[in-house]
Amino acid sequence: MTSEYLDLNYKPTKNDLNCLFYIEPSRGVSFEKAAEHVTGESSIGTWTEVHTASGSSMRKLRPSIYHMNKNKGLVKVAYPLELFEPENVSQIMSSIAGNIYGMKAIQNLRLLDFTFPEKAVKLYQGPKFGIPGIRKILKVKNRPLVGTIIKPKVGLPYKEHARVAFESWVGGCDIVKDDENLTDQKFNPFDKRIAETMQALDKAERKTGEVKIYMPNITAETEEMVERMEYVKKHNGKYVMIDVITLGFSAVQTVLKHSRKMNLVVHAHRAMHAALTRNKKHGITMLALAKLYRLIGTDQLHVGTAVGKMEGPAREVASIRDEITLDSVPESKDRLSQKWHGLKPVFPVCSGGLHAGHIPELMKIMGKNIVIQAGGGVHGHPDGTIAGAKSVRQAVDAVMAGPHNGDVPQCGTKTLKEYARTHNELRKVLETFGSYSR
Amino acid sequence: MTSEYLDLNYKPTKNDLNCLFYIEPSRGVSFEKAAEHVTGESSIGTWTEVHTASGSSMRKLRPSIYHMNKNKGLVKVAYPLELFEPENVSQIMSSIAGNIYGMKAIQNLRLLDFTFPEKAVKLYQGPKFGIPGIRKILKVKNRPLVGTIIKPKVGLPYKEHARVAFESWVGGCDIVKDDENLTDQKFNPFDKRIAETMQALDKAERKTGEVKIYMPNITAETEEMVERMEYVKKHNGKYVMIDVITLGFSAVQTVLKHSRKMNLVVHAHRAMHAALTRNKKHGITMLALAKLYRLIGTDQLHVGTAVGKMEGPAREVASIRDEITLDSVPESKDRLSQKWHGLKPVFPVCSGGLHAGHIPELMKIMGKNIVIQAGGGVHGHPDGTIAGAKSVRQAVDAVMAGPHNGDVPQCGTKTLKEYARTHNELRKVLETFGSYSR
Repeated sequence: MTSEYLDLNYKPTKNDLNCLFYIEPSRGVSFEKAAEHVTGESSIGTWTEVHTASGSSMRKLRPSIYHMNKNKGLVKVAYPLELFEPENVSQIMSSIAGNIYGMKAIQNLRLLDFTFPEKAVKLYQGPKFGIPGIRKILKVKNRPLVGTIIKPKVGLPYKEHARVAFESWVGGCDIVKDDENLTDQKFNPFDKRIAETMQALDKAERKTGEVKIYMPNITAETEEMVERMEYVKKHNGKYVMIDVITLGFSAVQTVLKHSRKMNLVVHAHRAMHAALTRNKKHGITMLALAKLYRLIGTDQLHVGTAVGKMEGPAREVASIRDEITLDSVPESKDRLSQKWHGLKPVFPVCSGGLHAGHIPELMKIMGKNIVIQAGGGVHGHPDGTIAGAKSVRQAVDAVMAGPHNGDVPQCGTKTLKEYARTHNELRKVLETFGSYSR
Repeated sequence: MTSEYLDLNYKPTKNDLNCLFYIEPSRGVSFEKAAEHVTGESSIGTWTEVHTASGSSMRKLRPSIYHMNKNKGLVKVAYPLELFEPENVSQIMSSIAGNIYGMKAIQNLRLLDFTFPEKAVKLYQGPKFGIPGIRKILKVKNRPLVGTIIKPKVGLPYKEHARVAFESWVGGCDIVKDDENLTDQKFNPFDKRIAETMQALDKAERKTGEVKIYMPNITAETEEMVERMEYVKKHNGKYVMIDVITLGFSAVQTVLKHSRKMNLVVHAHRAMHAALTRNKKHGITMLALAKLYRLIGTDQLHVGTAVGKMEGPAREVASIRDEITLDSVPESKDRLSQKWHGLKPVFPVCSGGLHAGHIPELMKIMGKNIVIQAGGGVHGHPDGTIAGAKSVRQAVDAVMAGPHNGDVPQCGTKTLKEYARTHNELRKVLETFGSYSR
C-alpha cells in the first residue's frame, strides 16, 4: 500500500466524520505505515493496489490523516460521510472499528473518540425522554434519582422479587431495576415477575404518594424483546432496561424504534463493556460507546461510579457524563469536540458497589443530574431493604442540604456523619460499610 | 464476600454450563479472592452479603469453582443451567462475560472457553446448511470453495460492482462477497446492487455451467435486515452475509430465525472481533465466540488465515476450525471439551490478505473443507480480476492434484511453481506477490 491518505494540511469539512485513534505499530512497521494501513482498511483500501479502484468516485471517498502525534501514538482521520450508511451504527462500526483491530501491522489500536458532523447528528433522534423527560415523569426536579437493583442478582422467586421491590420503594427508592442477568428464567419468569412487581409498584405509589419506577430487563432476541415491551406496556410499565453491549447495536436500534412509539423510557446497562474498554491501549473507549448510545437515543446509561466496586477513574467517568449531557463538548488532549445540536441529554447512571457512605464523594464528582443505583448498599443494610433504601435517600438529602460550590455539592464526610446522628438508617450503614473519601 | 464458591471436589453435572477463565487479580487481591469475585458477580453474588438471599432456591443456583491453577491463572467454574435463559445468548453473555470485566478485583480477565451441556446444545438448531448443505448447493464435493470480496471495499458504483462480480465468477470464483463496510450507501445502493449483481450471476452461471453464489451484506438495524433478506430472496438470492460482532448477538439470532424460514444461507463476517479477542490476557477468545455462532447457527464463519494480512497463529485458527466442524472436541490445555450432538459443521472461511501463493500452506494447515476468500489477491492481479480469479482456482487445483497426507494436502512451493509453468495466471501472481511457506 502506498502513502495515500497522509495529508497534514487537510482541514476536516462539514462532510467528514473524524476519528481519533491510538496506534501502536507492530515491530518493524513505521508509525506512518501503520496509520496508513488503519486508514485504508477502515475505508477504501486493502493490502495491495487493485485494478478495480479508479475514477472520481474513489477520489471523493478517500479519507485523510490530518493529524499525527507519533510520541503519543495519536492519529486523527477524516472520513467522508459518503463512506457510511449514516444511521446504520453496525455499518459505521464495521468500518471505523472493524477489521482494523486484527491487522498484523498493529500491535495495539484504540478508537478513542469520533466526531459526527451536524448533518449526521441530525439524522439521529437522540433520547426521547433523557434527563428532562425522566425528571418530569418522576416529578423530581433537582436531586439525584435514587435507585436500587434487586439483589441477589438472580435467584429470587417472582413474589419475593416484587416484595423486595416494594420495600425498596417504600424505603425511598425512586427506581427499582432488574439485574443484568435476570431476564426470563424458570425460577422467576418474566411475565409473572412484571405483573407482580407492577402491582407492588401501585401499592408503593399509594403508600408513599411518590411516583415510582420499575425497570424490567427485556434483554433477548429482538422480536422477543418487542413482545416483552408490549407486555410491559400492557401492565402500565413506563420503563424497560436492556444490556446494550451483549445485545449489540442493531438490536438496540430496533428497541429504540419501538420504545419511541410505545412511549417507553429505555435504560442502558453496559455489561461486557469493559471487555472492550478496559485496556487503555486497545479496543474502544467508553466515551466513544456512550456517544453512540446518545445518538441512537437510550434515555439512561451506566457511566461508572469513580467510587465503589467497578474500575474507572473519576476524570474518565466525569468526561463521559459531559459527553452525554452537554450540548457542546470541547476538544481536549484525548478527545475530539462534539456538538449535539439539541439532542437531549442522557441521564447518567452511577452503579456498582455503591452505598450511602459513597454519596458525598460521588456527588462531588458527578453533580446532581445522576441516577444513583445501590444494590448491595440497600439490601445489605444490617436492618434490611427498607432501612437500606432510607439510608441512601438520607445521604442524598444530607448532601443536598450541605454546602455547594455553585451547583456542585461539596458535602464532606464530617457533614454526612453529623446528619447521621439524627438518622438511624444512615448511621448504621456508615458503621457497617464506613464512609468514603478520596 | 465470603468464600462461597470454591469446591475443588465438585464434579460438573449434566445440568452445568462450565467456563474456563484466565484471571489476573489486581494488586493486593489473592487469586482465590479474585476467582470468588468473578464467580459471584457472574451469577448470584454482589460485593456484600444481602438479607434477601436465602432459602433453597439460592442453594440450587450456586456455581462451583471446581478447578484452579494459580500459576497459569486458570479457573473452571460450573454454573447451574437454571441461572440462564438458555436460548438467550445476550443474557448468557451478560452473566458469564458481563460486569466481571470491569471489576476492581481483577487486572485482566479472559473467557477462554465454555461447555454447553447436552440439554442446552439441543435447544439450539445450529446451521441449517453448514458444510454439507453448502456443498450440495454449489455441487462442489471435495475441493475448497473459492471466493472473492469485491474490491475496493467501498466506492464502486453498483454497475461496476456487478461487472467485477461477473469477472470474478467467470474467472473461476464460486462465491462473490460484499465487503464488511458496504451495505446501502449512496454510491452503491443496496437494492440496485442486488438486482444488477444477481443478473450478472445468471449470466456467469450460463457462461460457465457452474453454480455461482453472491453474498450481499445486509448488516443493518434488525427489521431493516429482514426487509433486505426478503429483497434478496425476491431476486433469487440464496445467501446473505452479516457482520456478526458489530450487529450483536440479539440481531444475529433474529436474522437466523428468518433465514431458516426463507431458506437463505448465512455467512458471518467477524469485523471488530479482534477488539475483544486479540489481547491474550483479556476479553474473549475467538474460540468461545465461534462456539456461540455454531450454536445459533451461522452457516459460514471467518476463522482467520494463519497466513496473510491478519493476526492469528496457525494453531489457534486450526483449533477454531475443529470447534466449528467436529462433532466432539476433546479438552486440551487451554480449552474445554464440547459435544455437538449432531449440530451441523459451520463452513470455516479463510480471508484476509490471501493470494494464490498462500494456498498450499493454507490448505496444509486448514485442509480442504474451507472457503478461501481472496480480495486483493484476485483484483490486484497484474492482468486484472479474471486472471486473479483464475490464479486462485489454479492454485487450488494444483494443491488438490499434489501430494496428500491422508486427507490433508501437502503441496509445497516447488510443486506450485511447477504447476505455474503451464498456468500463466498463477505464474504471474507468484511473480508479483511471491509464494509463501513458513
